[in-house]
Amino acid sequence: MTSVLFRRIAVAARACFLALPLLGVILIASPARAFVEGVETFDLDNGMQVVVIPDRRAPVVTHMVWYRVGAADEPIGQAGIAHFLEHLLFKGTKNNPDGAFSKYIASVGGQENAFTSSDYTAYFQRVAKEHLGDMMRFEADRMANLILTEAVVDPERDVVIEERKSRTDNNPGAQMSEALSAALWFEHPYGRPVIGWMNEIENLTLEHAISFYDRYYTPNNAILIVAGDVTTDEVRRLAEETYGKVERRAETPPRMRAEEPVHRTHRMVRLQSPLVTQASMMRTYVVPSYTTAHNNGAGWEGEALDLFAELAIRGSTSALYQKLVVEEKIAVSIGGYYRGSALDDTELAIFATPAPDVSLGELEAAIDRELAAFLDSEIAEEDLARVKRSVLAGAIYAQDSQQTLARVFGIALTTGGTVERVLAWPDRVRAVTAEQILEVGRKYLLKTRSATGYLVPPTPPRS
Amino acid sequence: MTSVLFRRIAVAARACFLALPLLGVILIASPARAFVEGVETFDLDNGMQVVVIPDRRAPVVTHMVWYRVGAADEPIGQAGIAHFLEHLLFKGTKNNPDGAFSKYIASVGGQENAFTSSDYTAYFQRVAKEHLGDMMRFEADRMANLILTEAVVDPERDVVIEERKSRTDNNPGAQMSEALSAALWFEHPYGRPVIGWMNEIENLTLEHAISFYDRYYTPNNAILIVAGDVTTDEVRRLAEETYGKVERRAETPPRMRAEEPVHRTHRMVRLQSPLVTQASMMRTYVVPSYTTAHNNGAGWEGEALDLFAELAIRGSTSALYQKLVVEEKIAVSIGGYYRGSALDDTELAIFATPAPDVSLGELEAAIDRELAAFLDSEIAEEDLARVKRSVLAGAIYAQDSQQTLARVFGIALTTGGTVERVLAWPDRVRAVTAEQILEVGRKYLLKTRSATGYLVPPTPPRS
Repeated sequence: MTSVLFRRIAVAARACFLALPLLGVILIASPARAFVEGVETFDLDNGMQVVVIPDRRAPVVTHMVWYRVGAADEPIGQAGIAHFLEHLLFKGTKNNPDGAFSKYIASVGGQENAFTSSDYTAYFQRVAKEHLGDMMRFEADRMANLILTEAVVDPERDVVIEERKSRTDNNPGAQMSEALSAALWFEHPYGRPVIGWMNEIENLTLEHAISFYDRYYTPNNAILIVAGDVTTDEVRRLAEETYGKVERRAETPPRMRAEEPVHRTHRMVRLQSPLVTQASMMRTYVVPSYTTAHNNGAGWEGEALDLFAELAIRGSTSALYQKLVVEEKIAVSIGGYYRGSALDDTELAIFATPAPDVSLGELEAAIDRELAAFLDSEIAEEDLARVKRSVLAGAIYAQDSQQTLARVFGIALTTGGTVERVLAWPDRVRAVTAEQILEVGRKYLLKTRSATGYLVPPTPPRS
Repeated sequence: MTSVLFRRIAVAARACFLALPLLGVILIASPARAFVEGVETFDLDNGMQVVVIPDRRAPVVTHMVWYRVGAADEPIGQAGIAHFLEHLLFKGTKNNPDGAFSKYIASVGGQENAFTSSDYTAYFQRVAKEHLGDMMRFEADRMANLILTEAVVDPERDVVIEERKSRTDNNPGAQMSEALSAALWFEHPYGRPVIGWMNEIENLTLEHAISFYDRYYTPNNAILIVAGDVTTDEVRRLAEETYGKVERRAETPPRMRAEEPVHRTHRMVRLQSPLVTQASMMRTYVVPSYTTAHNNGAGWEGEALDLFAELAIRGSTSALYQKLVVEEKIAVSIGGYYRGSALDDTELAIFATPAPDVSLGELEAAIDRELAAFLDSEIAEEDLARVKRSVLAGAIYAQDSQQTLARVFGIALTTGGTVERVLAWPDRVRAVTAEQILEVGRKYLLKTRSATGYLVPPTPPRS
């Protein structure tokens, strides 16, 4: 799966921020770990889903609209249109031209942001609670009334082209990550970068933008999430007055993506660049997501993969870190993640940096050896209890941030999850057994399901 | 680019023959090398193109219909539908049910065959000249009147599933080749196997078949090629009476395929299998085809790549063979090809088998070293003259086979070429300079444009 493209906006100087899974610099959206009281959900008459998350610690609200569309839903040849349209949402509407929405947010001391991933596109604001109705009015307005003309689209395409140049085309880690995804996924669009391939971005047109907007930016394809010092009744009243007035422009679009064929080969991607000063490697595996595990009747597999990642590869207490960094000193760093929140099968990744005298080939062989040893061993009761505490603590910490909490629900609901399944997630984690963790590891951590990326400096210490 | 799926049919026991670019067993459709007198071409009123190739050595004709559609034109999620439909064309029409066409061909002592590639689908018969009109009547009939029902489609899907199992799923070389293509091509459908991925073949439906047939099997998307003891006037009269009566069912379908992004990484695919007894490797590069070179205003690049392949990698006189097999004895075999006939950018491949004590890594490094040495050297006048003779001789030899000659035109016309460009091919080969050959090699034989496949036995001699 490709990365989430984040977007940070300031009125004067708009600075874009990106969370790309670069080798060694991984920033992942938190999986659905929230465990929170009083969450309520309902639908408006036009099919728009609403989720209210009470959080009364301060008189502020986080207001988010999520669309069930991302880069993996893009038509062939239009890679990047989801992210491009996200840019265009900031240009203006007939009622609120020239970035009036952003100016208003700044004038009331609020914050805003937007992001596009393979599975979703989302827009959010954080403001004092009395401005919630205004946020809804502006956001509902740009759901239906966006001005899309050549005059808007053409210069913004150049902005995206520059964005891609600076984020990817001058960054060997990003290039490697992109090529690794393309090699990991044969057919599924998770193999495509969220920002799009340059050659396709250059060919994106006004017509593409209009067609994508009309097909996907319809209230029945959107989810409103409000977290903060509000009641469900307040949210319902405000939402009906604003979003409730937006007409459906299309039926709920199906999310049909090409399925992966059976993988039988290990794939490898190698990038050597003068911009690389430190060799590093990344291994990715195709594994079930929470959603595909659930749909396959093995709903525990997602949580077992979470715990597998925590035990084997994630953080300095993991088996691989302890063995290869602390004990054998083959690696100077090692880490990984499981990206459980995805509509389709997803990625589990391991990344590592070798010690000065160790080649990437030696490091990779050591990782394979230690993974095999881990899957052959038994998991001690106290280790299982420890990682469950650690994983569940993540859900507790998430509640400290109103925005993180809201995002957990937004991500879950746009990737095939439900509010109920998010709330039951801690119970599912607690129920996972040591045997299940080893079982998912043995079942999915196969080299034939994986791809390895090497990022190599111009003259490697050992070739 | 993926392979051509051939189809050989006998009435009693239909035996399918496959030319897959397996590691070490490569069988390639001849590039457009014919140089022949008296070829004429014209269009019927419904837009069907006709090519007549006189060949009066025997009273026989080769009758072919080519459709400008192949696996690279398939809708997402329907990989294999082009080849599946080719199978269904043999089932029967209202007028000629139950394989009546094939029975008739057998009854007059004729031969027939069909094949599907990424870019084209073709049907042909070789019969005594007096049966040409009958061939046209049958073939025109199945262009328009094919019976497509569940009763026809369902059992044939099982036939294709079995075909895939026997050709690919039990053959590590085929699996490797498939995975290598998928890794070489990030976006372009040449990365998909012509026969389709098993998971998509299993989901092909009657509706898919009807929709593909109605969209592509229309006379304006077809080319009739008749080679043999006939005149253009005879062919025109017979074609107007048969194909000329077939109505257009659709506008000429556009052939819009996703373009490749810029490649920046070398990719590698590794398959270890107990079915492999001898390690081998294959390297593929994305290079221009005759058509893309022509469209880019560098029409000589295709012919220069042909000559590069002949000089450097093809056959036992090539530089790599002489150095690595004969002189250094690092490899027991080495070869390659340039597949110039393709609608879009295409593949140049090198394959090699290491000597007993040589690892694939050592062999690959030696190949890279010798390729670099070749591109750094000068091409001697006599070597250039020799390979031009050799390449041009291929065109002369092609004329010995009526069927090969007809195929050269069919392939060219379904991959963006013209009769004129086929006829001028020898002149373009003669005009290529030594400097142009080195230039295309240096420009396109970059590791970042390539993928390498390793086929490895269970316990390799050296790991």
